[in-house]
Amino acid sequence: MLFILYQLLQFLFFPFICFTLIKKAKGKLPLSKLLEYLGIAKKQPFPVTCFHCVSVGEVLTALPLIKQYQVQYPEQKLLITTTTFTGYQEVKKAFGDNIEHRFLPLDFILFSKLFFSCHNIQRINIIETELWPSLLQQAKRHNVQVSLINARLSKRSAKRYLKFPRSACWLVSHLDKVLAQHQDDADRFIQLGVSKDKITITGSIKFDIKIDPEKQQKGELLKKKCSHFPIILAASTHKGEDEIMLTAFKTLQQTEKNALLIIVPRHPERFDSVFHLAEKKQFKTCRKTEYSQPPQDCQVYIGDTMGEMIIYLSLADLVIMGGSFVPVGGHNLLEPAALKKPAITGPFNFNFTDITEQLINVKHTIKAENPQQLTQLLLKQCWDPDKLTEQGEQGLKVVKNNQGALEKTLTLLI
Amino acid sequence: MLFILYQLLQFLFFPFICFTLIKKAKGKLPLSKLLEYLGIAKKQPFPVTCFHCVSVGEVLTALPLIKQYQVQYPEQKLLITTTTFTGYQEVKKAFGDNIEHRFLPLDFILFSKLFFSCHNIQRINIIETELWPSLLQQAKRHNVQVSLINARLSKRSAKRYLKFPRSACWLVSHLDKVLAQHQDDADRFIQLGVSKDKITITGSIKFDIKIDPEKQQKGELLKKKCSHFPIILAASTHKGEDEIMLTAFKTLQQTEKNALLIIVPRHPERFDSVFHLAEKKQFKTCRKTEYSQPPQDCQVYIGDTMGEMIIYLSLADLVIMGGSFVPVGGHNLLEPAALKKPAITGPFNFNFTDITEQLINVKHTIKAENPQQLTQLLLKQCWDPDKLTEQGEQGLKVVKNNQGALEKTLTLLI
Repeated sequence: MLFILYQLLQFLFFPFICFTLIKKAKGKLPLSKLLEYLGIAKKQPFPVTCFHCVSVGEVLTALPLIKQYQVQYPEQKLLITTTTFTGYQEVKKAFGDNIEHRFLPLDFILFSKLFFSCHNIQRINIIETELWPSLLQQAKRHNVQVSLINARLSKRSAKRYLKFPRSACWLVSHLDKVLAQHQDDADRFIQLGVSKDKITITGSIKFDIKIDPEKQQKGELLKKKCSHFPIILAASTHKGEDEIMLTAFKTLQQTEKNALLIIVPRHPERFDSVFHLAEKKQFKTCRKTEYSQPPQDCQVYIGDTMGEMIIYLSLADLVIMGGSFVPVGGHNLLEPAALKKPAITGPFNFNFTDITEQLINVKHTIKAENPQQLTQLLLKQCWDPDKLTEQGEQGLKVVKNNQGALEKTLTLLI
Repeated sequence: MLFILYQLLQFLFFPFICFTLIKKAKGKLPLSKLLEYLGIAKKQPFPVTCFHCVSVGEVLTALPLIKQYQVQYPEQKLLITTTTFTGYQEVKKAFGDNIEHRFLPLDFILFSKLFFSCHNIQRINIIETELWPSLLQQAKRHNVQVSLINARLSKRSAKRYLKFPRSACWLVSHLDKVLAQHQDDADRFIQLGVSKDKITITGSIKFDIKIDPEKQQKGELLKKKCSHFPIILAASTHKGEDEIMLTAFKTLQQTEKNALLIIVPRHPERFDSVFHLAEKKQFKTCRKTEYSQPPQDCQVYIGDTMGEMIIYLSLADLVIMGGSFVPVGGHNLLEPAALKKPAITGPFNFNFTDITEQLINVKHTIKAENPQQLTQLLLKQCWDPDKLTEQGEQGLKVVKNNQGALEKTLTLLI
């Protein structure tokens, strides 16, 4: 009943939806990509597995899973769908032309039908919670196996669905598998009407990371050779953040004479300028490419190498996460957490809201609202190695709680 | 009269506007930045010059101007305002913490008033055409000099303004200077009621570029030593584009045995992988860092250096612009145009719509809608050096038409 109303409303708003779509995409998208929103694409006969990620966040979440999937099932062709343009950009950034991308069609029966007849889709794996009625209905008609991955259902969303219990039940009846993040998510899906045998609890794949043990060892060895304490790592800094780190560090030096600041800029094109900036500010500055370990009198050590973040992290006593003091949106705090290194983050964490919040909750990470607070935090920090490790271990707990989510999800997908 | 209605409507929609704002910014912005939308900021007593850029596009347009302004008037403190969050990100990316940023307050009299009392603004330079009634009115009340820079007024916009001629006249009466892009823009501003003596035609600062003559010479010298023809430059490629370039080039090689493809990846972290990709595809591949000029038997030459694009461009006979075959949005085609090198661009040019359109209009640039069309274009291209230069010269004309806009604007601003 509600589904018919839904179709009717869509029909009424169709001209408006099309207008908005065309206006937004004009000049940005070639016609062939635009038509995908109507379910129209070149016909592809070979069977594919589809991953649906609404936007950037979901693409980033699914990335390690999809890459692992490619390795494990190389014979399967993959298709990634997104709703947003920025999601599309992210897919291309990650996979180039190695994976096909389509925009998910607007949720009209006709468009979904076209979508499934243009593509020979065997399975559709939906990241987190996107339940589109027409899509799900047509998926079933075309015998497509539908799974929700990293599935999450907040209390609030569940309540909203339960206002129309019969429609909710109809909606979730199209799902073949629900891989729920946690027990409470699972419970709520059951409330909506998903039968128990379809649900598995996997943990969140966002929190599932692997640390290269070789690099970790390398870093720990380096740490033993290094007489500095405390060692503070400014990880993945962006333009404008190095000044902030250096200023805070200068103040800290007044009480901690033997401290070392490691700065690892996010982009290699900034290695030189950050080095010169530190020198200009009167720090005794060395580069990793010139000194494979920080000399005793070194005050600022520039990590001007790529792919060695784990080494720098293992070397550090405390991590200040870059991309969070300028509106970049932060970087992943799970690596320091997995290595038991406590962290400070700035006000901008919007790319990693979930992870950052959880790590702040367990006091592994502390948030500085601005550069002044960063300085204060460094001054107030208790520089006792045991205390630091204790703080760091809280982060490791969060990581451990979700370990294996990726593996579990992978085996359950086939 | 209309202004009162405008205020009234705003008042009615105020809760809705606030709700949208908070929802959008939640988790992204710290409170202090959010408050800027209400005109609230830390009081700053020193006098500043303000540049207002709505969003990313305007920030990118204004960048060279603002940088030059800093050099020419180092004693003046600058403030950049944007309306959008992405604009804010772009400002930080370009200037780090060297320039203050504020969000432009919502256009209520109260908020604009607060904005001008928190900041001691001497001049406000508005990029292109943003005419906010409350802002302009309050600017005048606070004796701020208001200039429109790179000002543009399309036929359509002018028509819309002229539906309310008295309001339009009132609005533009607040402007002290209008630096119009072209004669027709100027004419339309006069129609609205701007007095002639306030208007100057400057050309568009977007089209005003400078080529380093030393690098150009270096490239030309290299070209003389190089026996390959034609030399095709794939400039600033992103992930997924190298395959496209290599495939198109392989086909071209069947007819043009002596052709050379130069690939310059946009990001240095991809130098290695692009080199290996070309080798894997059976091309005789060399790197710039190993061979300072392409050896005679070289087929693909990887430009694995930074800051040398002008050299590569001068070396080329034809340029394929990267970032345009994947949804990155293209790169600036003015450099090839200024160097008289014809260009091919892909379907995604949304970061440089204006420039790309104009260069396509004069046939300097040709657009390939997809990778297949790129191959066809290369095959159909007439590989006659004179013809190529002729095509390239059309681009130079566009550049010349706007040359000096930046200088002119700079001197007129004070």
